[in-house]
Amino acid sequence: MTGAESLIRTLLACGIDTCFTNPGTSEMHMVAALDANPGMRPVLALFEGVVTGAADGYARLSGRPAATVLHLGPGLANGLANLHNARKASSPILNVVGEHALYHLEYDAPLTSDIAGFARPVSSWIGRADSADLVAGQAATAAAAAISGKIATLMMPADSAWGTVSNNSAQPEIKVMNVAPNEDAAALNAAIDALRTYGDQALLLLGSTALLDDSACWAQAVAQATGCRVAAQSLSARMTRGADLPPISRIPFEIDAALRYLAPVRCLVRIGAPSPVGFFAYQGKPSQLLPDGCKVIDAAPDASDPRLVLQALAQALKVLPVRVSLVARMADPAGALDTKSIAAAIAATLPDDAVVIDESITAGQFIFPMTASAARHDWLNNMGGAIGFGLPVAIGAAIARPDRRVFAMVGDGSAFYTEQALWTLARENLNVTVLIFANRAYAVLRNEWQRMKGGLAPGPRARDMLTLERPTPDWVAIARGHGVDAVRVDDAAALAKALRDGFNSSGPRLIEAVY
Amino acid sequence: MTGAESLIRTLLACGIDTCFTNPGTSEMHMVAALDANPGMRPVLALFEGVVTGAADGYARLSGRPAATVLHLGPGLANGLANLHNARKASSPILNVVGEHALYHLEYDAPLTSDIAGFARPVSSWIGRADSADLVAGQAATAAAAAISGKIATLMMPADSAWGTVSNNSAQPEIKVMNVAPNEDAAALNAAIDALRTYGDQALLLLGSTALLDDSACWAQAVAQATGCRVAAQSLSARMTRGADLPPISRIPFEIDAALRYLAPVRCLVRIGAPSPVGFFAYQGKPSQLLPDGCKVIDAAPDASDPRLVLQALAQALKVLPVRVSLVARMADPAGALDTKSIAAAIAATLPDDAVVIDESITAGQFIFPMTASAARHDWLNNMGGAIGFGLPVAIGAAIARPDRRVFAMVGDGSAFYTEQALWTLARENLNVTVLIFANRAYAVLRNEWQRMKGGLAPGPRARDMLTLERPTPDWVAIARGHGVDAVRVDDAAALAKALRDGFNSSGPRLIEAVY
Repeated sequence: MTGAESLIRTLLACGIDTCFTNPGTSEMHMVAALDANPGMRPVLALFEGVVTGAADGYARLSGRPAATVLHLGPGLANGLANLHNARKASSPILNVVGEHALYHLEYDAPLTSDIAGFARPVSSWIGRADSADLVAGQAATAAAAAISGKIATLMMPADSAWGTVSNNSAQPEIKVMNVAPNEDAAALNAAIDALRTYGDQALLLLGSTALLDDSACWAQAVAQATGCRVAAQSLSARMTRGADLPPISRIPFEIDAALRYLAPVRCLVRIGAPSPVGFFAYQGKPSQLLPDGCKVIDAAPDASDPRLVLQALAQALKVLPVRVSLVARMADPAGALDTKSIAAAIAATLPDDAVVIDESITAGQFIFPMTASAARHDWLNNMGGAIGFGLPVAIGAAIARPDRRVFAMVGDGSAFYTEQALWTLARENLNVTVLIFANRAYAVLRNEWQRMKGGLAPGPRARDMLTLERPTPDWVAIARGHGVDAVRVDDAAALAKALRDGFNSSGPRLIEAVY
Repeated sequence: MTGAESLIRTLLACGIDTCFTNPGTSEMHMVAALDANPGMRPVLALFEGVVTGAADGYARLSGRPAATVLHLGPGLANGLANLHNARKASSPILNVVGEHALYHLEYDAPLTSDIAGFARPVSSWIGRADSADLVAGQAATAAAAAISGKIATLMMPADSAWGTVSNNSAQPEIKVMNVAPNEDAAALNAAIDALRTYGDQALLLLGSTALLDDSACWAQAVAQATGCRVAAQSLSARMTRGADLPPISRIPFEIDAALRYLAPVRCLVRIGAPSPVGFFAYQGKPSQLLPDGCKVIDAAPDASDPRLVLQALAQALKVLPVRVSLVARMADPAGALDTKSIAAAIAATLPDDAVVIDESITAGQFIFPMTASAARHDWLNNMGGAIGFGLPVAIGAAIARPDRRVFAMVGDGSAFYTEQALWTLARENLNVTVLIFANRAYAVLRNEWQRMKGGLAPGPRARDMLTLERPTPDWVAIARGHGVDAVRVDDAAALAKALRDGFNSSGPRLIEAVY
């Protein structure tokens, strides 16, 4: 058995059976080991930002880490932005990064680089398997770190991969569990007291698993019992919502709106969410968005499971989860495309149990409230702000949950970042519908310019930095070039039809909404 | 004056007048400063790997650094692979990376990351301007580092960018020079002695500036005077060659061929090149490729200019540069497309003074010898091995030298990595002809598999990791989607015509060669 085979077998023994990859020469023995071990599913991507984003999406939908196999330092470097996003979303991932044979490092060959240096800013665990015999132990340790919710990066030297594992090499005891501690009774009691004391001046802020499944029903029960307001973070890794769940609003993304939203709050009780801070700093505005003197209680400290803490809170208040009656589905919109009619088309057509990935940046802020009454779905946001997130995450979500429809809403500026993802959608024939918001601009940046300059229009050189108009991208051509069926729409009825067609067809479909 | 304006003015004062960028909110004040300072040319790219690769290409053709403006840690992270390549090619670049306002960092907002950590593996200088007053000094220091041939990374906090420079802030004395020391007389004498002593068992290995302009004529003179062989490195940052220059062969890229090529060498005299090592390590093969006992002399130590050292060597030998008579241009090929007919089509059509960027990986090894008799051109290789290099470097080369034609040869696997570069080619209407080698595979990896498995065919899962066939990319559609005219060819006569059309037309053109 080679070290590469030992790696794949150890990962499988740890329950890691999906591997997103773009391998190179130094990973060729791992490719051979993948070839020989059909238990591990390899998924090829044309760029490593797609690889790592797919692993993030897989983790969000499955709750388990996938492996990535990356080609040396530059392969890892290409994947760092989406690893940054994954880290901010607490998505577990196990990166396997090929390294030169150890004896080759001193010669500073072209691809030699400081792999650990690249890995450090995004990894909670970094290790290297310095011989074939050490692979299994290092891989099991890395897997344990990943399964406990971290990003682990294992460097795999080529000579460890091609080397033979000796017969007497100790096989590691595989101990990989992720058991959250019980809820903290003192924190729970403090939260209950505060919610009762502050009433509608209290805000129950939910994040992490306290936004999953029927958590909204439990939160609504707490609100009814105590009079508190309930909110989700501006951006969440995954939030279950839809017509059969009480709607939960989000703290607005835009800083002035967020400050207004939070102004009446005198006590924040947070479960799985940090205290709200500005996405960016702005001149003359605070970083920390709570009003001065606001009391903050963390009801789920010490890694206890936020979903269970929320339920324990409701149970301590002796209330039952609130069920809501289904509202009628919205009718298809008609007329011109704008953010409102796009939102209406989505709300009208979203299939049951869809996975919605929102990288629409500016538009998504309007679509979120209008889809509260859509069929039940999970809504995924980018927690790290590095664009190029939506299409790769869609791959991983669809591979983790082939039984569900994935819907990725992506601004054109963001979609360009990892457009190569389209090819993997086609190759794996994933049931993903992509909606490109072709406003042909970095719209969020135009808003920021307005904020900075108080309405003063950008000059031609600044305008050029904020727009995608010269030339105008053709997303239908780009999609087809990558093997994905595509259609362009410019009115609301056509969009609703295209969405329904996409949701009902097998394999990926791209819709370019020009507005 | 804001800190952002101070930055732009300082860079201009240092002679840095081109800026490749993909800015975000935290860089908006720099966009405003670019708007107000028309001396700085901003070039927008849709992905930071394009930004940094363009800066590499600009440096190679102009000999001067460009600036990049990148959006926080993830923006830098996306540019790291091409910064790795630039570092290996000794291309100077000044990265300006936006950072949150310093007071905002403690709140760990979504885009907060360890920017210096990301920068360290690729940067020789890292600094941060901690106030508006400090911007000019930090920027001048960064510029001096870049101009001396390094990659410098300057972090620019948003509050330093929007802050006002105080009237009494000291303006830095701008001292930016890159003067190489004189050649080392002892090293030169040792080289002369060795070349005379070893004759045809000596190899004069050239790299860096010893491959520029008419260096080949000087090297040929040395060879005629001493009987030594002359070679270039396998991969060089830039090499001037063509029909009016003596041809210089390269050390083969493939390891067995390289070992055979170097086997007779008993003394290596290197000028601007390191001793040859394997690109990768291979089981049972050496890393260091010179035969045992081979003597090595570095004729250009201590940063002396390799081109001048080569000339000094010839002058010490009292020989004049060798001029060669022009050979007749090859006729257009006809018939099926294969590596040989593609090479012939390129050799027949390449315009005078072209810049050839070779990221064709497998095919380029055949095209190189066949283009020795093409019109004079510069040949650029990737020194770092991180693919996704060719298209971005073409942007920078064309912006540095609008008077020259740029020809980028890119394998399809490599082209996907930074396909967004096509849009910037179109936006800037650059005279770049792109040839995509659509072999629909990671051909180099198929070769590596053959080497590893001794001819055993890959299984279906491994085969899937090595091919781009499912689905087949359509590069004509992809190019048009990004605003670039494109044509597909599948025979040699059509290729020659398409190349000639591309070289004679204004703006970019993509040719997909299917074979």
